[in-house]
Amino acid sequence: MIRERLYLYDTTLRDGQQTQGVQFSVAEKVQIARALDALGVDYIEGGWPGANPTDSDFFAARPDTRATFTAFGMTKRAGRSAANDDVLAAVLNAGTPAVCLVGKAHAGQVVTALGITPEENLEAIGASVAHVVAQGREALFDAEHFFDGWKTDRAHALACLRAAEAAGARWIVLCDTNGGTLPAELGRIVAEVIAAGIAGDRLGIHCHDDTGNAVAGTLAAVDAGVRQVQGTLNGLGERCGNANLTSLIPTLLLKEPYASRFDTGVSAAALAGMTRTSRMLDDILNRVPRRAAAYVGASAFAHKAGLHASAILKDPATYEHIDPGLVGNTRLIPMSNQAGQSNLRARLAAAGIEVDPKDPRLARILEVIKAREDQGYAYDGAQASFELVAMAELGLMPAFFEVKRYRVTVERRKNRYDRMISLSEAVVVVKIGGRKMLSVSESMDETGSDRGPVNALAKALAKDLGPYQACIDDMKLVDFKVRITQGGTEAVTRVIIDSEDGQGRRWSTVGVSPNIVDASFEALLDAMNWKLLRDGVAPA
Amino acid sequence: MIRERLYLYDTTLRDGQQTQGVQFSVAEKVQIARALDALGVDYIEGGWPGANPTDSDFFAARPDTRATFTAFGMTKRAGRSAANDDVLAAVLNAGTPAVCLVGKAHAGQVVTALGITPEENLEAIGASVAHVVAQGREALFDAEHFFDGWKTDRAHALACLRAAEAAGARWIVLCDTNGGTLPAELGRIVAEVIAAGIAGDRLGIHCHDDTGNAVAGTLAAVDAGVRQVQGTLNGLGERCGNANLTSLIPTLLLKEPYASRFDTGVSAAALAGMTRTSRMLDDILNRVPRRAAAYVGASAFAHKAGLHASAILKDPATYEHIDPGLVGNTRLIPMSNQAGQSNLRARLAAAGIEVDPKDPRLARILEVIKAREDQGYAYDGAQASFELVAMAELGLMPAFFEVKRYRVTVERRKNRYDRMISLSEAVVVVKIGGRKMLSVSESMDETGSDRGPVNALAKALAKDLGPYQACIDDMKLVDFKVRITQGGTEAVTRVIIDSEDGQGRRWSTVGVSPNIVDASFEALLDAMNWKLLRDGVAPA
Repeated sequence: MIRERLYLYDTTLRDGQQTQGVQFSVAEKVQIARALDALGVDYIEGGWPGANPTDSDFFAARPDTRATFTAFGMTKRAGRSAANDDVLAAVLNAGTPAVCLVGKAHAGQVVTALGITPEENLEAIGASVAHVVAQGREALFDAEHFFDGWKTDRAHALACLRAAEAAGARWIVLCDTNGGTLPAELGRIVAEVIAAGIAGDRLGIHCHDDTGNAVAGTLAAVDAGVRQVQGTLNGLGERCGNANLTSLIPTLLLKEPYASRFDTGVSAAALAGMTRTSRMLDDILNRVPRRAAAYVGASAFAHKAGLHASAILKDPATYEHIDPGLVGNTRLIPMSNQAGQSNLRARLAAAGIEVDPKDPRLARILEVIKAREDQGYAYDGAQASFELVAMAELGLMPAFFEVKRYRVTVERRKNRYDRMISLSEAVVVVKIGGRKMLSVSESMDETGSDRGPVNALAKALAKDLGPYQACIDDMKLVDFKVRITQGGTEAVTRVIIDSEDGQGRRWSTVGVSPNIVDASFEALLDAMNWKLLRDGVAPA
Repeated sequence: MIRERLYLYDTTLRDGQQTQGVQFSVAEKVQIARALDALGVDYIEGGWPGANPTDSDFFAARPDTRATFTAFGMTKRAGRSAANDDVLAAVLNAGTPAVCLVGKAHAGQVVTALGITPEENLEAIGASVAHVVAQGREALFDAEHFFDGWKTDRAHALACLRAAEAAGARWIVLCDTNGGTLPAELGRIVAEVIAAGIAGDRLGIHCHDDTGNAVAGTLAAVDAGVRQVQGTLNGLGERCGNANLTSLIPTLLLKEPYASRFDTGVSAAALAGMTRTSRMLDDILNRVPRRAAAYVGASAFAHKAGLHASAILKDPATYEHIDPGLVGNTRLIPMSNQAGQSNLRARLAAAGIEVDPKDPRLARILEVIKAREDQGYAYDGAQASFELVAMAELGLMPAFFEVKRYRVTVERRKNRYDRMISLSEAVVVVKIGGRKMLSVSESMDETGSDRGPVNALAKALAKDLGPYQACIDDMKLVDFKVRITQGGTEAVTRVIIDSEDGQGRRWSTVGVSPNIVDASFEALLDAMNWKLLRDGVAPA
């Protein structure tokens, strides 16, 4: 089979910025553009210069990339020349090698929303694209509302595409703007467009996820012949988001019929960075990564059912459609009270602890785990705490240190400027190898604001751990989750803490108590004990 | 066109429970089953009786439903009769009208994972299904690994389906167990199965979202002829989750070709409860609802771009593929413009506050709400706090009391029996009409156990409020929810408190702070102020 080139067009920095609550800084845009370029996409759409001050600043500061940098804008308004349209001029002034101009391809909306005739619309499309081409840029035409336009007035929708094509657009992008076209119909319409004479290797597809089908709609369009795929990292975008490139790229590279048929700019090595790239974007946005995300989610290769966990050891293909390592993800066999002994042994083996299948301590570990789950503990998302329970039952847990007592105080009062402030302070008393150490810390971030009692407690605990200090200094708290179990006034608090060390290793621990501070403290202690254990530190 | 019946099979309580971090209690399962029944699904799969004590308890406590209650289990093991298989017996003992048995439909895995011959597998399927039918139950056969089985050994995969059919299975469910089959191939295989003689109205489809195509794969199977659709609310499920019924149901009811072609058990009125049902499940799981979820997400009909917001007022179809009200969702337009103000007036009117549309204070309220939402406040679930913000901006908020300061201490230390205990104590200083009152309380429940700093603070605050005491004594805290917003080390805590008074009136308030104790205190204060305001208590 002759392999064809399939082009990837990323719009995380433009359409992705339409996500509710998302507003990238210039520095963040630069960081994301670099990551996209390392991934190997063909086009990076950076924003709409002139429409937004950040976007204009970003184009001035954009990094050098192998990918073709693209500015987004709008076709000229009717009644003026392309050269005299200030909005279009601002887009061209960004100086990008490619320019993508949006124009309506829906006769009805041209009349109602723009208040111009369909003929004026065709003139605006043709003249704008020709102007971009005359400036020596690669031109893309973004056919807004194309699918709805095709369903209501096929002749005008097609005329819009032809106007752009005739004016020299390298790409004509078919947009399902309101996200309402289902994959089967979308594929059918694309095939009709190609049959009408627009070549597939000049067509792009731009889907939205309003019915949860943006990825499938994109694949249906590729099946029908388009050769440019538009989307965003993690499916960012207005409303329900755009087609998710984080799902599409692994599918196009790893799965048939695409893997044998298409070349893209993404190498196998870059694909193995997909999970990291996805998490980096969440990090920038300060979002908790979606555990269930296809390919890159933390749960994407997690096998909770005991039967599944044992089958996977015999044949990974039973419950894994790809090797998780290909996208930089990892298999996870979590603990839960649905888990059998095979789950438990696999989990212990993953932690480097080999236990004979006949060892009676296996049953005891499961009993302890079950009893603790009844109290509100959850080990699915807290592997490290699970390992500590197992190690203790196996008699392998060293006594690194003992917490004799602690005290945390939260105060709210007026400061000397007569403003209400809160203040948290913690005292922790620890015994290490017969030596008692007393530490005190208050909670304060860089801006002098209180971060609360758990923060104060963590600081005090980590302040002086004598022989363990170097090992503990290397860890930091990266996430903190609270869940109230049982609800109402009988509320019990479950705290899950994610920690990370200097090598980028991450681990999660759990604490449970009616007292939220105490639950947090328990999870903190587990996090430290796990680090000391895994680093092979000798107990004092 | 003759309308056909399409059956909806929900497995939120079984496959959904395989989600990492999800473990339903019996009470939660009952609540979800009721919601599913109100929605109008045809089958509710409740769990695997015998495999899990919670599931067994749930079947004993299951509510009466119009939907057919289904127990899930496994075909009998080879080498024993169906009547003598204890695992199968436990499933039948749950006494449900329908039973769904999973069995492998993949010759290779039968040999490697089960260690039996393909012939023994066929015998196990046939005998197990026949046993269920002989007990007078409706039998379903869940053909695990069917699509991979079909791709590698079509004859055996088909023989498995035929064995179940011959034994009297009402439904044969085609499972894409590892989620790796793309929609186009999946539709093609379903068509081949039907061409091979298994009728579409006896076939079900069970997809997983490992490539982000579970919804599209399900639609492809329906297009090819299956008449039972399996999925879960919010797409819960192992790894990346199951086909999302919350997306599928609106598509099947509202969009062509499905709307004209199929009847389901879901009425238009029930469909309008879809958003509420989706949020209820997130509430039970204490998950932050996914804003970008198709149909039901808070952003699904949010129009951030200025151009879009104005176009939508002229023609909603420009950027909305359906009327959001059909699924119980609402359009969201940035609060700054006209539409935002009319929304606000409607909300104020609902709270009994009439404001003139030209009142400039409306814009100010919107600004304050927006600024607070940026800080992490959420007023959707905290109407009482929203009213307090509006009343303050309208100058209608009396100053009932002022908290001068508070101090909470949490201590963990050994008691006189040398056991580790925790202890929380709070001091609150309040000024009421010029009088300063100082209260102290510790947190202790009936059993003498510590309930934590928030409980101590609530007790101290409510202990002595002078002229307001009678009004405050009449309220109690009935629920307490904590969400960490933004995640990571920048974590900000949002606390929502539900309160109730003697007349059964309930109201919700919100507090936000990096300090969880302070966030709780803020929500507590709002709860008391709202009660005093609504009871028309005169400020001292």
